[in-house]
Amino acid sequence: MSVLIHFSIFPLDKGKSVSPYVARAVKIIRESGLKSKLGPMGTSIEGEWDEVITLVGRCLEDLKKDCDRVYTTITADYRKGVSGRIESKVKSVEKKL
Amino acid sequence: MSVLIHFSIFPLDKGKSVSPYVARAVKIIRESGLKSKLGPMGTSIEGEWDEVITLVGRCLEDLKKDCDRVYTTITADYRKGVSGRIESKVKSVEKKL
Amino acid sequence: MSVLIHFSIFPLDKGKSVSPYVARAVKIIRESGLKSKLGPMGTSIEGEWDEVITLVGRCLEDLKKDCDRVYTTITADYRKGVSGRIESKVKSVEKKL
Amino acid sequence: MSVLIHFSIFPLDKGKSVSPYVARAVKIIRESGLKSKLGPMGTSIEGEWDEVITLVGRCLEDLKKDCDRVYTTITADYRKGVSGRIESKVKSVEKKL
Repeated sequence: MSVLIHFSIFPLDKGKSVSPYVARAVKIIRESGLKSKLGPMGTSIEGEWDEVITLVGRCLEDLKKDCDRVYTTITADYRKGVSGRIESKVKSVEKKL
Repeated sequence: MSVLIHFSIFPLDKGKSVSPYVARAVKIIRESGLKSKLGPMGTSIEGEWDEVITLVGRCLEDLKKDCDRVYTTITADYRKGVSGRIESKVKSVEKKL
Repeated sequence: MSVLIHFSIFPLDKGKSVSPYVARAVKIIRESGLKSKLGPMGTSIEGEWDEVITLVGRCLEDLKKDCDRVYTTITADYRKGVSGRIESKVKSVEKKL
Repeated sequence: MSVLIHFSIFPLDKGKSVSPYVARAVKIIRESGLKSKLGPMGTSIEGEWDEVITLVGRCLEDLKKDCDRVYTTITADYRKGVSGRIESKVKSVEKKL
């Protein structure tokens, strides 16, 4: 019943270097215990919907402490009865190349 | 403290006509009482983060009843201390044209 | 053969008020002659893929003149043999509510 | 002047297993010579705007051959005067953890 999301978050009011803020979010994600993969444009996370979305909310809550404007993008892919997709989706594509 | 999201949801396993499923989600959104605007590529919703994201979760929960794969996109814009942006953001841009 | 996109663009290095920059993009979109609808979280545009994506590129080109970092989100929905969807998609959902 | 995008593409009319179609897009991306990284929810690609967006268009063109409805998501991050970010962005965040 798990869902896989790609998630990015960054402030708009802190200038062009946003990696300190991204790092705070990534830290929260890693400490959550959910499976995740950091990529150049966001982090993929796998878990139950409530778990992953609570995690996104905690990242936003953290950035709100000192950021006046925060932008977030999420794409979510739910597939019934299949988990471990944070690994298997890439493998499934690679096998077909 | 409100957040504004643009949200789309649709099944991947029901063929190319997905509007019956989109309509189910839009109905849930409208019955929530949150301010929303249906557009050609998704629905904009304004509210507290917990409110809007709980609503997204309820739409996903509903589609999961009979869909084996569901895709969701969300972009969220948080801006400190400003609400009513589902109306004011468009007006603010229109004034500058 | 037309495609429908939802498109947003904004700078990251200009502080929390980005509407002057959004307005420049919206102006370019409106002057293009393509069908578009401005919403709270972006603009929906309909046209041939090459037309809409060239337009997105022109918006980016314009913001690059004075912005050092620019973020863009695009979702695109292609459906064979159907046009006028910037109007008909919303109507199709509304009819089912 | 390079841009970094995260890109996903899939048909809506081919059922819940879309990896054969995703693989066709990934093949086109890899043969392009642009730097790319396949992830669980999409592919990150770095290059000039015209290069990356032409590549996205070629993937769409390919899927249109036998798909009646195709959905695409793109997030793009332009940063003036910095390239190699498909590697450096992750490193910059990792250093701050």
